[in-house]
Amino acid sequence: MAKTMAVNAGSSSLKFQLLEMPAEQVIAQGVIERIGMDDAIVTIKYGAEIVAERLVGHSDDDEDHITITKDGKGKKYENVVPIKDHQQAINFMLQKLTDLGIIEDFQEITGVGHRVVAGGEWFNHSVVVTDEVLAKIDRLADYAPLHNPANAMGIRAFQKLLPDALSVAVFDTSFHQTMPDVNYLYSMPYEYYTRYGARKYGAHGTSHRYVSARAAAMLGKDLKDLKLITLHLGAGASITAIKDGKSFDTSMGFSPLAGVTMATRAGDVDPSLVYYIQEREGLTNDEMLNVLNKKSGLLGISTISSDMRDLLDVQDTNEHAKLAINIFINRVIKYVGQYVAEMNGVDAIVFTAGIGENSVPVRKMIVDKLSYFGIKLDNEKNNVRGEEVEISTSDSKVKALLIPTNEELMIARDVESLKG
Amino acid sequence: MAKTMAVNAGSSSLKFQLLEMPAEQVIAQGVIERIGMDDAIVTIKYGAEIVAERLVGHSDDDEDHITITKDGKGKKYENVVPIKDHQQAINFMLQKLTDLGIIEDFQEITGVGHRVVAGGEWFNHSVVVTDEVLAKIDRLADYAPLHNPANAMGIRAFQKLLPDALSVAVFDTSFHQTMPDVNYLYSMPYEYYTRYGARKYGAHGTSHRYVSARAAAMLGKDLKDLKLITLHLGAGASITAIKDGKSFDTSMGFSPLAGVTMATRAGDVDPSLVYYIQEREGLTNDEMLNVLNKKSGLLGISTISSDMRDLLDVQDTNEHAKLAINIFINRVIKYVGQYVAEMNGVDAIVFTAGIGENSVPVRKMIVDKLSYFGIKLDNEKNNVRGEEVEISTSDSKVKALLIPTNEELMIARDVESLKG
Repeated sequence: MAKTMAVNAGSSSLKFQLLEMPAEQVIAQGVIERIGMDDAIVTIKYGAEIVAERLVGHSDDDEDHITITKDGKGKKYENVVPIKDHQQAINFMLQKLTDLGIIEDFQEITGVGHRVVAGGEWFNHSVVVTDEVLAKIDRLADYAPLHNPANAMGIRAFQKLLPDALSVAVFDTSFHQTMPDVNYLYSMPYEYYTRYGARKYGAHGTSHRYVSARAAAMLGKDLKDLKLITLHLGAGASITAIKDGKSFDTSMGFSPLAGVTMATRAGDVDPSLVYYIQEREGLTNDEMLNVLNKKSGLLGISTISSDMRDLLDVQDTNEHAKLAINIFINRVIKYVGQYVAEMNGVDAIVFTAGIGENSVPVRKMIVDKLSYFGIKLDNEKNNVRGEEVEISTSDSKVKALLIPTNEELMIARDVESLKG
Repeated sequence: MAKTMAVNAGSSSLKFQLLEMPAEQVIAQGVIERIGMDDAIVTIKYGAEIVAERLVGHSDDDEDHITITKDGKGKKYENVVPIKDHQQAINFMLQKLTDLGIIEDFQEITGVGHRVVAGGEWFNHSVVVTDEVLAKIDRLADYAPLHNPANAMGIRAFQKLLPDALSVAVFDTSFHQTMPDVNYLYSMPYEYYTRYGARKYGAHGTSHRYVSARAAAMLGKDLKDLKLITLHLGAGASITAIKDGKSFDTSMGFSPLAGVTMATRAGDVDPSLVYYIQEREGLTNDEMLNVLNKKSGLLGISTISSDMRDLLDVQDTNEHAKLAINIFINRVIKYVGQYVAEMNGVDAIVFTAGIGENSVPVRKMIVDKLSYFGIKLDNEKNNVRGEEVEISTSDSKVKALLIPTNEELMIARDVESLKG
């Protein structure tokens, strides 16, 4: 059967998921880390069970670096090997998929969908990669200097190794291209918009798109008739207002730095303060941006961890951890309020991504603080992780939903629909 | 009768209001502009009517530069004279108050209250100025480099000329010192707070304090039992959430740059974008801050004017003017939504300051967009300027109030209460 690969290429890593389409069945997923090093790490999970947590950790074949799940159906391949570049990483991965019997031949992979971070104003939907598209992705590196070059590198490497597969670019920003100018423009000199594309682009578009469609299905309504607020709360976090089936506003801005408090990103900060700190600390622009991106957020406030789970564990005894959690909740609440005001209403809020899918207490803190808007949590229903479920009470005026995101599936679907 | 002067000293200007206390009657007000120049402008209004609009513009005595109101009771003195510094400006003004018969003797002025922009964490209420207070105001210039030095200069000059009058400092920030840490802290490394005072201080505190007290009186309730959102919308604009009678959150941040779109200030902007523009335009930090403070906001978006009245005049034919208005309204709406969420409710919103007091269409656009929160505008009641009036319908669940601010009166009251 035809297989589609969803790819997320970073500067030194490559994540992938292989799906059988249109059955939408995941048959393998994996990651290659530390590309460019002599000790790159390759991980591939496959078989009937592809959930890391269920691997029992014993190996039936040490030579092949394989562990299997308790039921014997799921397997994990792990190895440390020298890998000099993305090309070699992909080659190794495809060869390994064949060796492990996951595919018989490279030709089975008929489509590859690539996550691309910045699509600017050029891409408001996923596209087949042409030379022109690739040139634009290169040029958009201005907006995502750490990501777009890596994304383009991944695309080129796959094109070389799988020249017959359809190559598709799926942009993190394209879902948000429907925002009205009132919401995407900053209150700066207008010429900065025309000259430099200074505007809000947002991110996590594929995730917001996926969960908003699922929310409509769960509520049994047409997405076009709903006002939704989708909360993608992971290490990176963004909140999106969805109206008339389209992204109406989103918390991330020109870059993914803006918006709510994140694992290590600051979210919204008064620019005067940024300069004030920068000058006192004697930092360059890049160094200051590095502080805002890598040393702020939950980590910066708590001083102990960027991981919400760590903070929740110690919140009763560690004031800073408690403060970081409370600030995170506060910023999320504020964005929900903004979007209720801006859409002049809301039908449901949707939790997704790492924290949103798995943190029972975080969801509870957020929903409890939104009682004025008519959202009521069902504590029993909320006591789940990673399941698609309504977590508000049946009489809650505004619904709260938990929907695990699935960006890889959206990417595979986009590839599928572009096969024409 | 004892008189109190409320003073707002800028770097090249000095505004004042002279009140009879405790009667709270304004007996003169004025401004000296272009201090340091050979053509400084002195304006003093006095008499029974002290409202500029009612001056008829004819002069009964050209030599004395005086115009009078139609009813003959209000007078305006205007003159262009060389004034080299604040000391001379104040001396000239006090002498003129005597010449014009407004006061008989300097000694009548028993108290002078000075607006001071930055009070940091040191001042959570108005204080009698001592050497220590003055030293702190000097040190707080770090937070308000354009304002605190001028404020301190005004204090010193008055102390010299009126050594017997009680000198009081009234801080723009002190009302906001009640904000909880969750609301005033940024999601940055915590050490920046302890080391540099990196936090939200807010501004317009005296105005928010005044209108919130008036709002409670108008609603016939104890301020402590109300959740209010006060919208100080002038050339500078800030929005404050008031809970339990105290400032709970406010839209301005570390500096008055943050928050909603203002006349020439940008309000909230993704710091990444600020650096992005700065590098492309080849600007220094100070130059970029100047763009954000002086060339952004309504002026930056519209490209034609920083004055809301100009934009409203041409909005039907000028797309950019319309866009600037819509973005302004949008940002205000968003902050109202934030604060409804954060306070988990709201009893009333209050309009004040230049735009808030005088722009019928702006108030209408804002309230109409907040219908989901149960605020309903009474279009007839809203058709007023500068009056203390409820502008929502009688069945409006959440009230909308129009309350002209009066920072000078608050300053005079603080002086009065510190006379002990």
